[in-house]
Amino acid sequence: MIQVREARADDWPAMWRLMQPVVAAAETFSWDPDLPEEQARERWFHEPPGRTFVAIDDDGEIVGTAESEPNHEGPGAHVATAGFMVDSHRQGRGAGRALCEHVLERARADGFRAIQFNAVAESNARAVALWKSLGFRVLTTVPEAFCHPTEGYVGLHIMYRRL
Amino acid sequence: MIQVREARADDWPAMWRLMQPVVAAAETFSWDPDLPEEQARERWFHEPPGRTFVAIDDDGEIVGTAESEPNHEGPGAHVATAGFMVDSHRQGRGAGRALCEHVLERARADGFRAIQFNAVAESNARAVALWKSLGFRVLTTVPEAFCHPTEGYVGLHIMYRRL
Repeated sequence: MIQVREARADDWPAMWRLMQPVVAAAETFSWDPDLPEEQARERWFHEPPGRTFVAIDDDGEIVGTAESEPNHEGPGAHVATAGFMVDSHRQGRGAGRALCEHVLERARADGFRAIQFNAVAESNARAVALWKSLGFRVLTTVPEAFCHPTEGYVGLHIMYRRL
Repeated sequence: MIQVREARADDWPAMWRLMQPVVAAAETFSWDPDLPEEQARERWFHEPPGRTFVAIDDDGEIVGTAESEPNHEGPGAHVATAGFMVDSHRQGRGAGRALCEHVLERARADGFRAIQFNAVAESNARAVALWKSLGFRVLTTVPEAFCHPTEGYVGLHIMYRRL
């Protein structure tokens, strides 16, 4: 059973252990694959109303993490965005789903009206299927906007769910 | 005749004079309307390959400004994004068009494959028409993603042009 809670500063080393390989692989995230750890930490932990979560398995291990924040500011601050990373060795065990359900619940409680994902690689079939099963739909696919290391140029889905 | 050139650090006071009312109006930009000047400056001037431009009129006055940078990093760094602000008292004189033509030209020269605008308020009919006349198309409209001060919730267009 996966538990999700707010991330604490002292969770970071375990979070980065699972995040760094995801970033370096550059198969799912549009981040610099060599992003320094300190910049990753600043990017993943937000000022309120942004939030950061960790998913914990039965052994008490951090197996995934998520962040959410307003997608824009001011007149656009009522739509949230979010990002998710799961330990590549622990995929398919429900961490991504548990994290996303938690993000949806908290975003709704925080008063956001919708969630928008800005860049879901269409080659990331597992994630696309998961988000769809959680009520997200593809608003559009930006053509060839993601250069996958083995599949070449693929589209980036912009996905959306009203809260 | 509008001339466009790279912005210099000492252009900032004139840039901010035209930008601040645009930001404060919150009618077109999804920024905090009270964004402090220093944060606006950091947001508008980029590290390379980002660029910042100013549009100069016949009197040598700065009447508009634009910025562009990669929309994402790493596997997504080949698509640029851009932002534009024109002095509200000098609209309709070609500054926006000249800035966008310049951004397109430089982005192409810099090797970008496309440009994506992430948040064009659909209520901003003048801008939407201008971008369309310059070859952009609306990929999707995120529903009610922009809260206009008088028109209420309107959509945010995501616009795109291949280079």
